[in-house]
Amino acid sequence: MKVKVVSRILEANDRIALENRKIFDRAGVFVINLMSGPGAGKTSLLERTIAQKAGLRVGVIEGDIAGSDDAERVDRLGVPVVQINTGGACHLDSNMISEVLDDLPLDDLDIVFIENVGNLVCPAEFKVGEDMKAMVLSITEGHDKPLKYPLMFQESAALVLNKTDLAPYVDANVDKIRKDAISLNPQIRIFEVSCKTGEGIPEWIAWLKEKAGKG
Amino acid sequence: MKVKVVSRILEANDRIALENRKIFDRAGVFVINLMSGPGAGKTSLLERTIAQKAGLRVGVIEGDIAGSDDAERVDRLGVPVVQINTGGACHLDSNMISEVLDDLPLDDLDIVFIENVGNLVCPAEFKVGEDMKAMVLSITEGHDKPLKYPLMFQESAALVLNKTDLAPYVDANVDKIRKDAISLNPQIRIFEVSCKTGEGIPEWIAWLKEKAGKG
Repeated sequence: MKVKVVSRILEANDRIALENRKIFDRAGVFVINLMSGPGAGKTSLLERTIAQKAGLRVGVIEGDIAGSDDAERVDRLGVPVVQINTGGACHLDSNMISEVLDDLPLDDLDIVFIENVGNLVCPAEFKVGEDMKAMVLSITEGHDKPLKYPLMFQESAALVLNKTDLAPYVDANVDKIRKDAISLNPQIRIFEVSCKTGEGIPEWIAWLKEKAGKG
Repeated sequence: MKVKVVSRILEANDRIALENRKIFDRAGVFVINLMSGPGAGKTSLLERTIAQKAGLRVGVIEGDIAGSDDAERVDRLGVPVVQINTGGACHLDSNMISEVLDDLPLDDLDIVFIENVGNLVCPAEFKVGEDMKAMVLSITEGHDKPLKYPLMFQESAALVLNKTDLAPYVDANVDKIRKDAISLNPQIRIFEVSCKTGEGIPEWIAWLKEKAGKG
Protein backbone atom coordinates (compact mmCIF):
# COMPACT_ATOMS: atom_id res chain seq x y z
CA MET A 1 0.00 0.00 0.00
CA LYS A 2 2.77 2.41 0.99
CA VAL A 3 4.72 1.43 -2.12
CA LYS A 4 1.68 2.13 -4.27
CA VAL A 5 1.40 5.67 -2.95
CA VAL A 6 5.06 6.35 -3.52
CA SER A 7 5.07 4.99 -7.05
CA ARG A 8 1.98 7.05 -7.92
CA ILE A 9 3.72 10.17 -6.59
CA LEU A 10 6.81 9.40 -8.66
CA GLU A 11 4.70 8.79 -11.78
CA ALA A 12 2.92 12.12 -11.35
CA ASN A 13 6.27 13.79 -10.74
CA ASP A 14 7.79 12.35 -13.92
CA ARG A 15 4.82 13.46 -16.01
CA ILE A 16 5.21 17.09 -14.87
CA ALA A 17 8.98 16.82 -15.29
CA LEU A 18 8.41 15.91 -18.94
CA GLU A 19 6.21 19.00 -19.38
CA ASN A 20 8.91 21.18 -17.81
CA ARG A 21 11.50 19.63 -20.09
CA LYS A 22 9.42 20.47 -23.16
CA ILE A 23 9.17 24.09 -22.07
CA PHE A 24 12.92 24.30 -21.51
CA ASP A 25 13.57 22.63 -24.89
CA ARG A 26 11.24 25.01 -26.71
CA ALA A 27 13.17 27.94 -25.21
CA GLY A 28 16.49 26.35 -26.21
CA VAL A 29 17.73 26.22 -22.61
CA PHE A 30 20.04 23.53 -21.26
CA VAL A 31 19.06 22.64 -17.69
CA ILE A 32 21.27 21.19 -14.95
CA ASN A 33 19.89 19.81 -11.69
CA LEU A 34 22.74 20.54 -9.25
CA MET A 35 22.77 18.41 -6.10
CA SER A 36 24.93 17.86 -3.01
CA GLY A 37 24.83 17.44 0.75
CA PRO A 38 24.60 20.60 2.87
CA GLY A 39 27.56 22.94 2.60
CA ALA A 40 29.45 21.13 -0.17
CA GLY A 41 29.59 24.32 -2.21
CA LYS A 42 26.80 24.31 -4.81
CA THR A 43 26.22 28.07 -4.53
CA SER A 44 29.94 28.80 -4.51
CA LEU A 45 30.29 26.75 -7.70
CA LEU A 46 27.45 28.75 -9.27
CA GLU A 47 29.12 32.00 -8.23
CA ARG A 48 32.40 30.93 -9.86
CA THR A 49 30.59 29.63 -12.94
CA ILE A 50 28.60 32.84 -13.39
CA ALA A 51 31.71 34.99 -12.89
CA GLN A 52 33.57 33.08 -15.64
CA LYS A 53 30.61 32.17 -17.82
CA ALA A 54 32.33 33.56 -20.91
CA GLY A 55 29.38 34.16 -23.19
CA LEU A 56 26.83 31.83 -21.60
CA ARG A 57 23.55 33.42 -20.49
CA VAL A 58 22.81 31.81 -17.12
CA GLY A 59 19.65 31.67 -14.99
CA VAL A 60 19.23 30.02 -11.59
CA ILE A 61 16.43 28.38 -9.61
CA GLU A 62 17.37 28.08 -5.92
CA GLY A 63 15.82 25.41 -3.70
CA ASP A 64 16.01 25.57 0.09
CA ILE A 65 13.92 24.41 3.02
CA ALA A 66 13.87 28.02 4.25
CA GLY A 67 15.53 31.36 3.60
CA SER A 68 16.79 33.17 0.52
CA ASP A 69 20.52 33.49 1.27
CA ASP A 70 21.54 31.60 -1.85
CA ALA A 71 19.24 33.54 -4.19
CA GLU A 72 20.63 36.78 -2.78
CA ARG A 73 24.21 35.61 -3.42
CA VAL A 74 23.33 34.80 -7.04
CA ASP A 75 21.26 37.95 -7.50
CA ARG A 76 24.31 40.08 -6.64
CA LEU A 77 25.99 38.69 -9.76
CA GLY A 78 23.26 40.15 -11.96
CA VAL A 79 21.71 36.97 -13.36
CA PRO A 80 18.00 36.08 -13.23
CA VAL A 81 17.24 33.99 -10.15
CA VAL A 82 14.14 32.68 -8.39
CA GLN A 83 14.04 31.13 -4.91
CA ILE A 84 11.83 28.17 -3.99
CA ASN A 85 11.26 27.45 -0.29
CA THR A 86 10.13 23.85 0.10
CA GLY A 87 8.83 24.23 3.65
CA GLY A 88 9.68 20.83 5.07
CA ALA A 89 10.40 18.95 1.85
CA CYS A 90 13.95 17.62 1.56
CA HIS A 91 14.12 17.84 -2.23
CA LEU A 92 12.74 19.76 -5.21
CA ASP A 93 10.05 18.11 -7.31
CA SER A 94 8.82 18.85 -10.82
CA ASN A 95 5.69 20.64 -9.63
CA MET A 96 7.71 23.19 -7.65
CA ILE A 97 9.79 23.90 -10.75
CA SER A 98 6.68 24.14 -12.91
CA GLU A 99 5.35 26.89 -10.67
CA VAL A 100 8.37 29.18 -11.15
CA LEU A 101 9.00 28.73 -14.89
CA ASP A 102 7.22 31.99 -15.69
CA ASP A 103 9.56 33.85 -13.35
CA LEU A 104 12.62 33.30 -15.54
CA PRO A 105 13.22 34.85 -19.00
CA LEU A 106 13.83 31.42 -20.54
CA ASP A 107 14.02 32.67 -24.13
CA ASP A 108 17.00 34.85 -23.20
CA LEU A 109 19.01 32.11 -21.46
CA ASP A 110 21.44 29.38 -22.53
CA ILE A 111 21.72 27.46 -19.23
CA VAL A 112 19.49 27.19 -16.18
CA PHE A 113 20.95 25.73 -12.99
CA ILE A 114 18.45 24.25 -10.56
CA GLU A 115 20.20 24.23 -7.19
CA ASN A 116 18.50 21.49 -5.22
CA VAL A 117 18.03 21.26 -1.44
CA GLY A 118 21.26 20.23 0.31
CA ASN A 119 20.71 16.49 0.70
CA LEU A 120 22.71 13.55 -0.69
CA VAL A 121 19.68 11.25 -0.78
CA CYS A 122 16.22 12.19 -2.10
CA PRO A 123 17.00 14.88 -4.71
CA ALA A 124 18.48 12.09 -6.86
CA GLU A 125 15.08 10.33 -6.96
CA PHE A 126 13.05 13.20 -8.41
CA LYS A 127 13.28 14.38 -12.00
CA VAL A 128 12.43 18.08 -12.30
CA GLY A 129 12.72 18.52 -16.08
CA GLU A 130 16.50 18.73 -16.31
CA ASP A 131 18.70 17.66 -19.22
CA MET A 132 21.33 16.45 -16.81
CA LYS A 133 22.06 15.96 -13.12
CA ALA A 134 25.39 17.01 -11.62
CA MET A 135 26.64 16.75 -8.05
CA VAL A 136 29.14 18.46 -5.79
CA LEU A 137 31.02 16.63 -3.02
CA SER A 138 33.35 18.44 -0.66
CA ILE A 139 36.50 16.44 0.04
CA THR A 140 35.96 17.34 3.73
CA GLU A 141 32.95 15.00 3.71
CA GLY A 142 35.24 11.98 3.54
CA HIS A 143 35.96 9.25 1.03
CA ASP A 144 33.21 6.89 2.19
CA LYS A 145 30.42 8.88 0.54
CA PRO A 146 30.02 7.16 -2.88
CA LEU A 147 29.34 3.74 -1.38
CA LYS A 148 27.08 5.16 1.36
CA TYR A 149 24.96 7.32 -0.99
CA PRO A 150 25.19 5.38 -4.27
CA LEU A 151 22.10 6.67 -6.10
CA MET A 152 23.25 10.28 -6.45
CA PHE A 153 26.59 9.15 -7.89
CA GLN A 154 24.76 6.82 -10.30
CA GLU A 155 22.39 9.55 -11.48
CA SER A 156 24.95 12.33 -11.98
CA ALA A 157 26.69 13.06 -15.27
CA ALA A 158 29.35 15.02 -13.41
CA LEU A 159 30.93 14.90 -9.96
CA VAL A 160 32.56 18.14 -8.85
CA LEU A 161 35.00 17.46 -6.01
CA ASN A 162 35.20 20.80 -4.22
CA LYS A 163 37.44 22.34 -1.52
CA THR A 164 40.64 20.80 -2.90
CA ASP A 165 42.43 23.72 -1.14
CA LEU A 166 41.73 21.86 2.14
CA ALA A 167 43.41 18.63 0.96
CA PRO A 168 46.55 19.18 3.10
CA TYR A 169 44.43 19.45 6.26
CA VAL A 170 42.00 16.53 5.90
CA ASP A 171 42.47 12.77 5.56
CA ALA A 172 40.14 12.31 2.57
CA ASN A 173 41.43 9.84 0.01
CA VAL A 174 40.47 11.47 -3.31
CA ASP A 175 41.64 8.43 -5.29
CA LYS A 176 39.18 6.25 -3.38
CA ILE A 177 36.34 8.71 -4.06
CA ARG A 178 37.21 8.61 -7.79
CA LYS A 179 37.49 4.83 -7.87
CA ASP A 180 34.21 4.23 -6.02
CA ALA A 181 32.31 6.87 -8.03
CA ILE A 182 33.49 5.28 -11.29
CA SER A 183 32.57 1.80 -10.03
CA LEU A 184 29.01 3.09 -9.49
CA ASN A 185 28.89 5.10 -12.72
CA PRO A 186 31.60 4.40 -15.31
CA GLN A 187 30.46 7.42 -17.41
CA ILE A 188 30.70 10.00 -14.62
CA ARG A 189 32.93 12.97 -15.43
CA ILE A 190 34.98 14.07 -12.39
CA PHE A 191 36.31 17.58 -11.79
CA GLU A 192 38.57 18.59 -8.90
CA VAL A 193 38.00 22.23 -8.04
CA SER A 194 38.44 24.81 -5.33
CA CYS A 195 35.69 27.40 -5.43
CA LYS A 196 37.83 29.38 -3.00
CA THR A 197 40.93 29.65 -5.22
CA GLY A 198 39.30 29.05 -8.62
CA GLU A 199 41.45 25.99 -9.32
CA GLY A 200 39.81 23.60 -11.78
CA ILE A 201 36.96 25.96 -12.68
CA PRO A 202 38.04 26.50 -16.33
CA GLU A 203 37.81 22.74 -17.05
CA TRP A 204 34.29 22.67 -15.55
CA ILE A 205 33.20 25.68 -17.65
CA ALA A 206 34.64 24.19 -20.85
CA TRP A 207 32.70 20.98 -20.25
CA LEU A 208 29.49 22.90 -19.49
CA LYS A 209 29.78 24.82 -22.76
CA GLU A 210 30.32 21.60 -24.65
CA LYS A 211 27.27 19.99 -22.99
CA ALA A 212 25.08 23.04 -23.62
CA GLY A 213 26.09 22.99 -27.27
CA LYS A 214 27.87 26.34 -26.97
CA GLY A 215 31.43 25.01 -26.92
CA MET B 1 -4.99 13.69 0.45
CA LYS B 2 -1.20 13.68 0.37
CA VAL B 3 -1.13 15.37 3.77
CA LYS B 4 -3.45 12.75 5.20
CA VAL B 5 -1.17 9.92 4.16
CA VAL B 6 1.87 11.62 5.65
CA SER B 7 0.17 12.36 8.97
CA ARG B 8 -1.02 8.78 9.22
CA ILE B 9 2.54 7.58 8.64
CA LEU B 10 3.85 9.94 11.32
CA GLU B 11 1.18 8.80 13.81
CA ALA B 12 2.07 5.15 13.26
CA ASN B 13 5.73 6.05 13.62
CA ASP B 14 5.20 7.84 16.93
CA ARG B 15 3.22 4.92 18.33
CA ILE B 16 6.07 2.49 17.64
CA ALA B 17 8.60 5.05 18.92
CA LEU B 18 6.75 5.08 22.24
CA GLU B 19 6.98 1.28 22.41
CA ASN B 20 10.72 1.43 21.72
CA ARG B 21 11.11 4.07 24.41
CA LYS B 22 9.38 1.85 26.97
CA ILE B 23 11.75 -1.02 26.15
CA PHE B 24 14.79 1.27 26.52
CA ASP B 25 13.42 2.65 29.80
CA ARG B 26 12.78 -0.80 31.22
CA ALA B 27 16.41 -1.71 30.47
CA GLY B 28 17.61 1.54 32.07
CA VAL B 29 19.27 2.74 28.87
CA PHE B 30 19.60 6.41 27.88
CA VAL B 31 19.16 6.78 24.12
CA ILE B 32 20.52 9.52 21.87
CA ASN B 33 19.39 9.98 18.26
CA LEU B 34 22.52 11.43 16.64
CA MET B 35 21.91 13.37 13.42
CA SER B 36 23.90 15.43 10.88
CA GLY B 37 24.46 16.02 7.19
CA PRO B 38 26.79 13.63 5.36
CA GLY B 39 30.39 13.66 6.53
CA ALA B 40 29.99 16.02 9.50
CA GLY B 41 31.63 13.48 11.79
CA LYS B 42 28.95 11.48 13.64
CA THR B 43 30.96 8.25 13.54
CA SER B 44 34.18 10.04 14.46
CA LEU B 45 32.38 11.58 17.45
CA LEU B 46 31.19 8.10 18.48
CA GLU B 47 34.72 6.74 18.14
CA ARG B 48 36.07 9.50 20.40
CA THR B 49 33.19 9.07 22.84
CA ILE B 50 33.65 5.32 23.09
CA ALA B 51 37.43 5.67 23.51
CA GLN B 52 36.95 8.06 26.45
CA LYS B 53 33.67 6.69 27.78
CA ALA B 54 35.06 6.47 31.29
CA GLY B 55 32.74 3.94 32.88
CA LEU B 56 29.77 4.27 30.52
CA ARG B 57 28.64 1.08 28.81
CA VAL B 58 27.87 2.13 25.23
CA GLY B 59 25.93 0.43 22.41
CA VAL B 60 25.38 1.72 18.88
CA ILE B 61 22.74 1.37 16.17
CA GLU B 62 24.11 2.52 12.79
CA GLY B 63 21.80 3.80 10.06
CA ASP B 64 22.94 4.12 6.45
CA ILE B 65 21.37 3.93 3.01
CA ALA B 66 23.89 1.23 2.13
CA GLY B 67 27.07 -0.36 3.43
CA SER B 68 28.42 -1.21 6.86
CA ASP B 69 31.55 0.97 7.06
CA ASP B 70 30.37 2.80 10.17
CA ALA B 71 29.35 -0.34 12.05
CA GLU B 72 32.76 -1.84 11.27
CA ARG B 73 34.50 1.27 12.64
CA VAL B 74 32.50 1.03 15.87
CA ASP B 75 32.87 -2.77 16.10
CA ARG B 76 36.66 -2.39 16.15
CA LEU B 77 36.30 -0.54 19.47
CA GLY B 78 34.69 -3.57 21.06
CA VAL B 79 31.20 -2.23 21.80
CA PRO B 80 27.92 -3.87 20.70
CA VAL B 81 26.77 -2.47 17.35
CA VAL B 82 24.08 -3.27 14.82
CA GLN B 83 23.82 -1.85 11.29
CA ILE B 84 20.55 -0.88 9.63
CA ASN B 85 20.54 -0.38 5.86
CA THR B 86 17.52 1.73 4.91
CA GLY B 87 17.61 0.90 1.19
CA GLY B 88 16.45 4.18 -0.26
CA ALA B 89 15.04 5.82 2.87
CA CYS B 90 16.74 9.08 3.86
CA HIS B 91 16.10 8.69 7.60
CA LEU B 92 15.61 6.06 10.29
CA ASP B 93 12.09 5.44 11.57
CA SER B 94 10.82 3.78 14.72
CA ASN B 95 9.94 0.53 12.99
CA MET B 96 13.50 0.04 11.76
CA ILE B 97 14.75 0.52 15.33
CA SER B 98 12.10 -1.82 16.70
CA GLU B 99 13.39 -4.59 14.45
CA VAL B 100 16.95 -4.48 15.83
CA LEU B 101 16.25 -4.05 19.56
CA ASP B 102 16.82 -7.76 20.19
CA ASP B 103 20.26 -7.52 18.62
CA LEU B 104 21.68 -5.34 21.42
CA PRO B 105 22.27 -6.46 25.05
CA LEU B 106 20.20 -3.56 26.39
CA ASP B 107 20.29 -4.71 30.02
CA ASP B 108 24.08 -4.42 30.02
CA LEU B 109 24.22 -0.89 28.55
CA ASP B 110 24.02 2.68 29.92
CA ILE B 111 23.80 4.61 26.65
CA VAL B 112 22.71 3.68 23.15
CA PHE B 113 23.60 6.00 20.28
CA ILE B 114 21.40 5.75 17.22
CA GLU B 115 23.47 7.17 14.37
CA ASN B 116 20.94 8.36 11.83
CA VAL B 117 21.35 8.58 8.04
CA GLY B 118 23.48 11.58 7.03
CA ASN B 119 20.79 14.14 6.19
CA LEU B 120 20.08 17.55 7.76
CA VAL B 121 16.36 17.40 6.94
CA CYS B 122 14.11 14.36 7.47
CA PRO B 123 15.76 12.57 10.41
CA ALA B 124 14.58 15.46 12.61
CA GLU B 125 10.94 14.65 11.76
CA PHE B 126 10.92 11.03 12.91
CA LYS B 127 11.00 9.93 16.53
CA VAL B 128 12.64 6.54 16.95
CA GLY B 129 12.23 6.05 20.70
CA GLU B 130 15.11 8.26 21.85
CA ASP B 131 15.36 10.24 25.09
CA MET B 132 17.11 13.04 23.27
CA LYS B 133 18.20 14.19 19.83
CA ALA B 134 21.68 15.64 19.26
CA MET B 135 23.28 16.93 16.08
CA VAL B 136 26.74 17.39 14.61
CA LEU B 137 27.63 20.22 12.23
CA SER B 138 31.06 20.51 10.65
CA ILE B 139 32.28 24.11 10.54
CA THR B 140 33.33 23.39 6.94
CA GLU B 141 29.61 23.28 6.03
CA GLY B 142 29.35 27.05 6.49
CA HIS B 143 27.55 29.39 8.86
CA ASP B 144 24.30 29.56 6.88
CA LYS B 145 23.12 26.11 7.97
CA PRO B 146 20.91 26.89 11.05
CA LEU B 147 18.61 29.25 9.15
CA LYS B 148 18.50 26.95 6.09
CA TYR B 149 17.74 23.76 8.04
CA PRO B 150 15.90 25.10 11.11
CA LEU B 151 14.01 21.99 12.27
CA MET B 152 17.06 19.92 13.20
CA PHE B 153 18.46 22.78 15.27
CA GLN B 154 15.07 23.19 16.97
CA GLU B 155 14.78 19.49 17.79
CA SER B 156 18.31 18.93 19.10
CA ALA B 157 19.28 19.19 22.77
CA ALA B 158 22.92 19.53 21.75
CA LEU B 159 24.82 20.91 18.78
CA VAL B 160 28.34 19.54 18.36
CA LEU B 161 30.38 21.85 16.13
CA ASN B 162 33.06 19.57 14.73
CA LYS B 163 36.33 20.02 12.79
CA THR B 164 37.40 23.11 14.74
CA ASP B 165 40.95 22.16 13.73
CA LEU B 166 40.05 23.41 10.23
CA ALA B 167 38.99 26.86 11.49
CA PRO B 168 42.15 28.60 10.22
CA TYR B 169 41.50 27.35 6.68
CA VAL B 170 37.78 28.01 6.20
CA ASP B 171 35.67 31.18 6.32
CA ALA B 172 32.94 29.81 8.61
CA ASN B 173 31.74 32.31 11.19
CA VAL B 174 31.26 30.15 14.30
CA ASP B 175 29.73 33.07 16.24
CA LYS B 176 26.99 33.35 13.62
CA ILE B 177 26.28 29.60 13.82
CA ARG B 178 25.99 29.90 17.62
CA LYS B 179 23.78 32.99 17.45
CA ASP B 180 21.41 31.53 14.83
CA ALA B 181 21.20 28.14 16.54
CA ILE B 182 20.30 29.82 19.85
CA SER B 183 17.73 32.03 18.12
CA LEU B 184 16.03 28.83 16.86
CA ASN B 185 16.46 26.93 20.12
CA PRO B 186 17.43 28.95 23.22
CA GLN B 187 18.01 25.74 25.25
CA ILE B 188 20.47 24.14 22.82
CA ARG B 189 23.80 23.18 24.37
CA ILE B 190 26.71 23.90 22.02
CA PHE B 191 30.06 22.08 22.04
CA GLU B 192 33.05 22.99 19.88
CA VAL B 193 35.12 19.90 19.22
CA SER B 194 37.72 18.42 16.93
CA CYS B 195 37.30 14.69 16.60
CA LYS B 196 40.72 14.72 14.92
CA THR B 197 42.66 16.28 17.83
CA GLY B 198 40.27 15.41 20.68
CA GLU B 199 39.78 19.07 21.63
CA GLY B 200 36.46 19.67 23.40
CA ILE B 201 35.62 15.97 23.80
CA PRO B 202 35.92 15.92 27.65
CA GLU B 203 33.18 18.60 27.96
CA TRP B 204 30.90 16.57 25.67
CA ILE B 205 31.52 13.38 27.70
CA ALA B 206 30.87 15.16 31.01
CA TRP B 207 27.56 16.46 29.69
CA LEU B 208 26.58 13.01 28.35
CA LYS B 209 27.23 11.43 31.74
CA GLU B 210 25.12 14.08 33.42
CA LYS B 211 22.28 13.55 30.95
CA ALA B 212 22.45 9.77 31.30
CA GLY B 213 22.32 10.13 35.08
CA LYS B 214 25.82 8.67 35.47
CA GLY B 215 27.66 11.94 36.18
